[in-house]
Amino acid sequence: ELNRYLEELHPRDIAEILVDLEEEKRIKLFEVLPWEIGAKVLDELDSDIFSSILSKISIEHKKKILDLMSQDDMVDILSDLSEDKRQEIINLLDSELAEDIKELLVYKEDSAGGIMTTDFIALRKDITVYSAIEYLRENAPDAETIYYVYVIDKDQKLVGVISLRELIIAKPNSLIEDIMSEKVISVNVNDDQEEVAKLVSKYDFLAIPVTDINGKLRGIITVDDIIDVIQEEATEDIYKFAGTSEAESEHLEEDKFFSKVIYSVKARLPWLLITLLGGTLSATILGKYESTISQYTAVSFFMPLLTGMGGNVGTQSSTLTVRGIATGHVDMKRAFKTIFQEMSVGASVGVVCSVIICIVAYLWMGDFKLGVVVGIAMAANMLTAATIGTLVPIIFKKLGVDPAVASAPFISTTLDITGLTIYFTLTTVLLLKIS
Amino acid sequence: ELNRYLEELHPRDIAEILVDLEEEKRIKLFEVLPWEIGAKVLDELDSDIFSSILSKISIEHKKKILDLMSQDDMVDILSDLSEDKRQEIINLLDSELAEDIKELLVYKEDSAGGIMTTDFIALRKDITVYSAIEYLRENAPDAETIYYVYVIDKDQKLVGVISLRELIIAKPNSLIEDIMSEKVISVNVNDDQEEVAKLVSKYDFLAIPVTDINGKLRGIITVDDIIDVIQEEATEDIYKFAGTSEAESEHLEEDKFFSKVIYSVKARLPWLLITLLGGTLSATILGKYESTISQYTAVSFFMPLLTGMGGNVGTQSSTLTVRGIATGHVDMKRAFKTIFQEMSVGASVGVVCSVIICIVAYLWMGDFKLGVVVGIAMAANMLTAATIGTLVPIIFKKLGVDPAVASAPFISTTLDITGLTIYFTLTTVLLLKIS
Ligand SMILES: [Mg+2]
Ligand SMILES: [Mg+2]
Ligand SMILES: [Mg+2]
Ligand SMILES: [Mg+2]
Ligand SMILES: [Mg+2]
Ligand SMILES: [Mg+2]
Ligand SMILES: [Mg+2]
Ligand SMILES: [Mg+2]
Ligand SMILES: [Mg+2]
Ligand SMILES: [Mg+2]
Ligand SMILES: [Mg+2]
Ligand SMILES: [Mg+2]
Ligand SMILES: [Mg+2]
Repeated sequence: ELNRYLEELHPRDIAEILVDLEEEKRIKLFEVLPWEIGAKVLDELDSDIFSSILSKISIEHKKKILDLMSQDDMVDILSDLSEDKRQEIINLLDSELAEDIKELLVYKEDSAGGIMTTDFIALRKDITVYSAIEYLRENAPDAETIYYVYVIDKDQKLVGVISLRELIIAKPNSLIEDIMSEKVISVNVNDDQEEVAKLVSKYDFLAIPVTDINGKLRGIITVDDIIDVIQEEATEDIYKFAGTSEAESEHLEEDKFFSKVIYSVKARLPWLLITLLGGTLSATILGKYESTISQYTAVSFFMPLLTGMGGNVGTQSSTLTVRGIATGHVDMKRAFKTIFQEMSVGASVGVVCSVIICIVAYLWMGDFKLGVVVGIAMAANMLTAATIGTLVPIIFKKLGVDPAVASAPFISTTLDITGLTIYFTLTTVLLLKIS
Repeated sequence: ELNRYLEELHPRDIAEILVDLEEEKRIKLFEVLPWEIGAKVLDELDSDIFSSILSKISIEHKKKILDLMSQDDMVDILSDLSEDKRQEIINLLDSELAEDIKELLVYKEDSAGGIMTTDFIALRKDITVYSAIEYLRENAPDAETIYYVYVIDKDQKLVGVISLRELIIAKPNSLIEDIMSEKVISVNVNDDQEEVAKLVSKYDFLAIPVTDINGKLRGIITVDDIIDVIQEEATEDIYKFAGTSEAESEHLEEDKFFSKVIYSVKARLPWLLITLLGGTLSATILGKYESTISQYTAVSFFMPLLTGMGGNVGTQSSTLTVRGIATGHVDMKRAFKTIFQEMSVGASVGVVCSVIICIVAYLWMGDFKLGVVVGIAMAANMLTAATIGTLVPIIFKKLGVDPAVASAPFISTTLDITGLTIYFTLTTVLLLKIS
């Protein structure tokens, strides 16, 4: 009865149940799972639970079940294991699979090679639709997908693609070469996973073939793994944007409290030290205006307002520009348009806020001159903020630097310095020198 | 020759070529496209180009081609058109399709109903695998996907699902009900698209069925549209986080300069006004410490450093918490763990930065006491920042408010106020009162 219940559950749900169980019960439950389901459950586990289960079951069971796993998932798990444990598992695989896995382990984790599987279906172009479908039928259990069939020549070069949908509709005695599509969109093993994701998303593919430098078909990447890439890259950009590094997002699954804190501190500290440097620079600049501040203390009351507004306008512009570059909405060919647009937005919000603060300062402090100076400084600061916030990521992109480096801490620290310079130049000139 | 070239191009690429052509050439090129391809190209266009093309081709051509479009894409385009133009196009559709489209137009744009298509394949459970495949063969041209086949009972209720992969492997004379999976994971027409995306991503589906409140199958959502949802929702969260609203991200495709600026100003102004209010509050607080500032001007030099560091630490914690809640990495059940972890990170970076600034202030200003006060204030401020940055999104989530509202402007404005209060309380007590 338990068996029937488990069989109707999705492997992903079984995996979640296993994670929540104590080790002993976890092994017991795993042992009663049919092999095919057990393998799919292993696909979904992280390396800790994976090893804990494998270390407790019989060698025979291990061999059988490893053979049924998805290659790409196995590679992900193995790359998180220690060298010893990894080798131990590879030794259990049959030699052909072991070769494939060793090859896949060589590719960089965020390259096409690092996320592909070699369990694809490839056919020669001179067979009929009927025999193609027969071939699919036999090889389906081993393949990651049977919905796209790739066509290769005698040198294993990718020459065509045909979907199962087209195969089903085609006349059984047509030749594959007559109905296949010859313009196959493919990626190279070394391409960045983000570029691969862009292609799959643009063309609405269910899988994309991966070739080596000679055009030989080496693997495929399926859409479910592309979804993971998209999530991962968005998280990575958000992390960079908040002023922490990719490294921290890669340790999201870490569950030891102390090492997690260490990773976070290491990842965040660099941007904080830059902020610290920027803040010290601000303090130095303010030191030059010591006499302005001591003569006109009220001037200093508005500093947090000025830096706060500048930082926020700048953060808005830089975030939107970084995201726009990532999604393709900010076209680098029309960078000037984006810059001009953000400057217009900055100027508009600047004018609105400037009028408001002018009135507030006047009503609150009864000091009209101070209100005007704060207002002008604020408008100038907000325009500068929008301009810098948009320019910096665009310049980074043009220089080949990741635009996401134009993080909130970086932008707001820069704008603290420019904003205070604008403000104190204006106050010194307008409030003290002129009057 | 042009025709053969075009036929080998992906519809998405043809769409991009059309967008770049002048109107006259665009229509000419579109007119030579085979109908099936023309329809797929229309699926990819935005509402402006879509109407401009449709207004120039013959009624007959229009009718034929609209009939071949994907329903979900047509609905997206129609919902961007004016009421008149929308009705004009609906009038061209055959009555059954017109009904479906009108039904789909009713659903909220970001609900399951708003992104689904009714072009799915559904079978009764008492037919054989052989006849199921025959049925697929006939109906493939109209269906959004044939890789998942849904099984319904006589009341149209969803009772099972079977993949084409399983059908291909199964014995031709087995009955569907014997091999289908009965635990179908489905969503309701009114479910939020983000929840749908989470399910598809979790279970690696190629499509998910959508049912109404009575369990009747109303449509399906395919994985390519789920990818769009994931991108859209990530963009939305990033926009909210930067202190602008969803509304601005919805006008990304807008290409009139002036209206784009207006949308942006409207979306960003609210958070800036809150910053303005916060800044005014900071100014009021500082006003209370006027005598501290005038007696000890150097104290004010470190204000931007203090607020900058607090803002950045707080932004790091809040961004990571908001993203963690969105991806499921921050488990609300273990909220305390996250808060404690972020507090530890805040305290650690606080201590490091505090020691550095202590030394810098001493070396630079020769004022050891000031250095100690700035250092203590900074460490306290950074701990507060990490705590508030983590707590606010978690509390929002618990209250049912979108955690992404804990935006950078909101957090950094709040932290300016708490940071300055901490700093001036400490300076007043330690520098002035004690000495
Ligand atoms: Mg991998
Ligand atoms: Mg797409
Ligand atoms: Mg996979
Ligand atoms: Mg997976
Ligand atoms: Mg990236
Ligand atoms: Mg990357
Ligand atoms: Mg700030
Ligand atoms: Mg829609
Ligand atoms: Mg998945
Ligand atoms: Mg679609
Ligand atoms: Mg699409
Ligand atoms: Mg959302
Ligand atoms: Mg939403």
